Amino acid sequence: MPLTPDQLSEIAAARATPRPTLRAVSEGMEAHLYHAHPVLDHGFIRVIDYMGDDAAIVQAARVSYGAGTKHVQNDEGLIRYLMRHWHSTPFEMCEIKLHVKLPVFVARQWIRHRTANVNEYSGRYSILDREFYIPAPEHLAAQSTVNNQGRGEVLQGEEAARVLDLLKSDANRAYDHYEAMLSTTDPNGDAQQGLARELARMNLPANIYTQWYWKVDLHNLFHFLRLRADAHAQYEIRVYAEAIAACVKDWVPLAYAAFEDYRMGGVTLSAKAIAVVKRMLTGEVVTQETSGMSKGEWREFEGVWG
Amino acid sequence: MPLTPDQLSEIAAARATPRPTLRAVSEGMEAHLYHAHPVLDHGFIRVIDYMGDDAAIVQAARVSYGAGTKHVQNDEGLIRYLMRHWHSTPFEMCEIKLHVKLPVFVARQWIRHRTANVNEYSGRYSILDREFYIPAPEHLAAQSTVNNQGRGEVLQGEEAARVLDLLKSDANRAYDHYEAMLSTTDPNGDAQQGLARELARMNLPANIYTQWYWKVDLHNLFHFLRLRADAHAQYEIRVYAEAIAACVKDWVPLAYAAFEDYRMGGVTLSAKAIAVVKRMLTGEVVTQETSGMSKGEWREFEGVWG
Amino acid sequence: MPLTPDQLSEIAAARATPRPTLRAVSEGMEAHLYHAHPVLDHGFIRVIDYMGDDAAIVQAARVSYGAGTKHVQNDEGLIRYLMRHWHSTPFEMCEIKLHVKLPVFVARQWIRHRTANVNEYSGRYSILDREFYIPAPEHLAAQSTVNNQGRGEVLQGEEAARVLDLLKSDANRAYDHYEAMLSTTDPNGDAQQGLARELARMNLPANIYTQWYWKVDLHNLFHFLRLRADAHAQYEIRVYAEAIAACVKDWVPLAYAAFEDYRMGGVTLSAKAIAVVKRMLTGEVVTQETSGMSKGEWREFEGVWG
Amino acid sequence: MPLTPDQLSEIAAARATPRPTLRAVSEGMEAHLYHAHPVLDHGFIRVIDYMGDDAAIVQAARVSYGAGTKHVQNDEGLIRYLMRHWHSTPFEMCEIKLHVKLPVFVARQWIRHRTANVNEYSGRYSILDREFYIPAPEHLAAQSTVNNQGRGEVLQGEEAARVLDLLKSDANRAYDHYEAMLSTTDPNGDAQQGLARELARMNLPANIYTQWYWKVDLHNLFHFLRLRADAHAQYEIRVYAEAIAACVKDWVPLAYAAFEDYRMGGVTLSAKAIAVVKRMLTGEVVTQETSGMSKGEWREFEGVWG
Repeated sequence: MPLTPDQLSEIAAARATPRPTLRAVSEGMEAHLYHAHPVLDHGFIRVIDYMGDDAAIVQAARVSYGAGTKHVQNDEGLIRYLMRHWHSTPFEMCEIKLHVKLPVFVARQWIRHRTANVNEYSGRYSILDREFYIPAPEHLAAQSTVNNQGRGEVLQGEEAARVLDLLKSDANRAYDHYEAMLSTTDPNGDAQQGLARELARMNLPANIYTQWYWKVDLHNLFHFLRLRADAHAQYEIRVYAEAIAACVKDWVPLAYAAFEDYRMGGVTLSAKAIAVVKRMLTGEVVTQETSGMSKGEWREFEGVWG
Repeated sequence: MPLTPDQLSEIAAARATPRPTLRAVSEGMEAHLYHAHPVLDHGFIRVIDYMGDDAAIVQAARVSYGAGTKHVQNDEGLIRYLMRHWHSTPFEMCEIKLHVKLPVFVARQWIRHRTANVNEYSGRYSILDREFYIPAPEHLAAQSTVNNQGRGEVLQGEEAARVLDLLKSDANRAYDHYEAMLSTTDPNGDAQQGLARELARMNLPANIYTQWYWKVDLHNLFHFLRLRADAHAQYEIRVYAEAIAACVKDWVPLAYAAFEDYRMGGVTLSAKAIAVVKRMLTGEVVTQETSGMSKGEWREFEGVWG
Repeated sequence: MPLTPDQLSEIAAARATPRPTLRAVSEGMEAHLYHAHPVLDHGFIRVIDYMGDDAAIVQAARVSYGAGTKHVQNDEGLIRYLMRHWHSTPFEMCEIKLHVKLPVFVARQWIRHRTANVNEYSGRYSILDREFYIPAPEHLAAQSTVNNQGRGEVLQGEEAARVLDLLKSDANRAYDHYEAMLSTTDPNGDAQQGLARELARMNLPANIYTQWYWKVDLHNLFHFLRLRADAHAQYEIRVYAEAIAACVKDWVPLAYAAFEDYRMGGVTLSAKAIAVVKRMLTGEVVTQETSGMSKGEWREFEGVWG
Repeated sequence: MPLTPDQLSEIAAARATPRPTLRAVSEGMEAHLYHAHPVLDHGFIRVIDYMGDDAAIVQAARVSYGAGTKHVQNDEGLIRYLMRHWHSTPFEMCEIKLHVKLPVFVARQWIRHRTANVNEYSGRYSILDREFYIPAPEHLAAQSTVNNQGRGEVLQGEEAARVLDLLKSDANRAYDHYEAMLSTTDPNGDAQQGLARELARMNLPANIYTQWYWKVDLHNLFHFLRLRADAHAQYEIRVYAEAIAACVKDWVPLAYAAFEDYRMGGVTLSAKAIAVVKRMLTGEVVTQETSGMSKGEWREFEGVWG
């Protein structure tokens, strides 16, 4: 369980005290505030705060465009237009702040998205908890034989058992030794100095959990979701992206629907690919050999059309 | 008057309908929401939205530092510590969104602060209003004779009158011609095509007003305020910075007080300057010649100690 | 002519003195260095410096991927793969620095691209030159009647003459008055104080030329070029983008070719649009009414397929 | 030894072939190019490329200021002025690209500097090497008893031996099991699938080495150096910052000297602290009690004056 009774009662207390505000309010998002949505075995995402809603996107765009937009019949149409034409600034006018608990190897991928604000729990200052990500059996996958950075089939039987046993025993041994190095009591019960926390942490493996506050605007969040909720993303970060996406859908339903249509469900065709589709529309049967595409491109192109 | 009766009634309507929220609320900021604080002759700043408060800064820092901070006795102490030690990330956890009406030459300085989100009223899409910044007589200053990028004394008499007359008449003539170029009726009342808005706007001078939505986090806002509320900033942007600062003070009073002490009221001494102060503390009388500083540095150094 | 004989001789001098370096060198770019490529009537772009070449993109990507990429047969294939899969970081490893002279209204669009470094000529510090953009007759376009932010036909006859006359006379009068306000001699030849430069500049129209140093990485430059070399961009910024694009093509030919295929020549289809193409590929005749798309979307969709 | 003979010969080859360029060349930096400067037990920094020199900073600033700066007598004076007045944009006109090999826990601190470009070696794609940071005995420090995020005395005797033994044996065991999980041969020599690389890497501790290409402008690099070459930075990142600083000093000697005087050797005094120094300059003996400062602030304040 990711949260202690104390933490759960803090969340309940935070949710018990609505206060009046004059700001834009998203009812859909209020329902999520502070709740911990579980992810993986010990992780979670929690929405701590948000700014704006669908109407705020339109409002910002209309300052940008002034009175001229009155002919756009409705907010949905304008939001779809903005998304289609890559107008990013109106989406930047919404902001979200999350509290996330996640394994270090996931945090290392996540932090590569630079246009965001982060405060991470410090292993220099504090002692980390004994919590490690151990994959569920159905996610214990073999190396893909076709994709150098992907997974293949699920491991079975002895091999699966061996892997799980190694991950668990190494994590626990590493943590035991982390504690022993930090301790001001030696194995014989005598006093010792205790290694600096900033050094001892180097013994901990990448599946230990860390946590952070992460704040990002909606445009950059959509970029994160497009890459990390994608089928090619590593499963362990994808589940975080999916949990966030579910909240975003309730927060800004119109913007999220446009994002789903144009980004998550959309595809970018190259000039070469457009030319091939045009030939196909005339009835021509095009093959990789006659397409002018490399094998990799052709495989991806075929993937679009099923 | 910067706002029309329609606009004022829109603001009144927005302020009339508080709604419950579970988010952090700053009472001080709620009082400012949507109100237009006048700046210069036709400009204003309006707070449209905000995220977080003083407690949110502490909360983010404590995730960053974990349970270890319990010994910091109070939020004020921690916030001062963070400011003193240039810990910027906790301040990034607060965000503000403003609607600003400002002359174009001020907008051109402002936009150089890149870590912010902006939606500007578009002169390609819409027709700009006939509103120009004309300095009040007490701000009609001569070129400084000592500072290449500053102002000297206020212009007097004939010269002042001449300058005001030129600014007003040129602005109005430029706008008349902007309208004439856009018009689909020629001077004889016959039909004409009308120049594209994206071209006609090039005739308008830099004191015409534009407007935008501007969203920024508290850390970057403090950086903006430090540079633009400073005595060396151009008066016309400084008054915007001061109007924003007054809102920030009500929003996050602890953070703002720390900012005033360490940034606005603080000073950075070079290694050379520290060495000089040490000599002065032993009773030595140091002059520019014996300081090792250039004349410019020495003048600024003397300015600190009055 | 954009450059004085003095400036031309400075450029010749800079080009006369090659020096040895161990860094990556792009022969194609060396040929452009320092030369001013004319844009509009008084503007230019000049490449001042660059970092990296096509091989540097591959080199960075291969650190990223380690020895595993040895199976990618050639640099071109890898660069195309990176572009197709939106891997932006290897392209960020190349950097370019430009000196640009451009009208203020173009600079105001340009600066909205925030991920770049800029040093602009300061009108607080210095006196601006009497140089204004006056459109060539063939670019003096009417407002589009179908696109709120676009141009229609070219103005003809009297109207064109009237517009050019207004633009020229207003620009010159504004500049005359700018000089008169700055002057320390009044119209009678007596001494006056002279208005501060930071104030006097507000009288100058948006077609006056400014200049700046602009430095950006290749990924962000491609993003700029995609938006600003696009047919929907305003002509006056598009010609700058095209002049830059011509240099980039000589600098990193493989990356530029991939950019042309996937970005400039490519198109993003929504989930809805993909579904329609699939129906079309089965021979179905799809109309706007049966497409599920709005009229605007359908018009753009049809535009792809000619 | 951080580099293999193959890698050393690649470096020698890269250094053997100077080519002519018209760009700004820094002789001091050319001497560093490609050489691996060792850091810690297996790490290094290597300068891969650079853009600009001291003169490029001045050149950019002079566009910014135009002809007006002719009265600044020399480049050094202007560079010092820019640094003193926090003019960051001219320093952004220089850029550096480094190849760095570093432990993961150092990489995790480093990446928090977001305004930079990074390509990291991918543990999804490739197999990491068996190289771990093991502190030298003189850097095996105890937790500080006064500073929650610092180090105290060096560990001695048995305790030191125990810590080193744990770090070494845990690292090697983790790596053995990483290999075993990846292996397509089970412990009995029979075929097994082999765990996906993206999963197996989670077993590796934070002292394993990774590597990346890191590109940053000089302004942001100075910010990095100020924080990470500081006495309060963790030793293991400080040595990287110092190795980089040594290269920067040879690259842009004037800018580096200004940085040392105003940033590394400088100190920021609060309004409160300035008031205290003024009292001290009149001969008053000020104590913490009469200073108005907290104990922490007073301790830091006393630290400045020795």
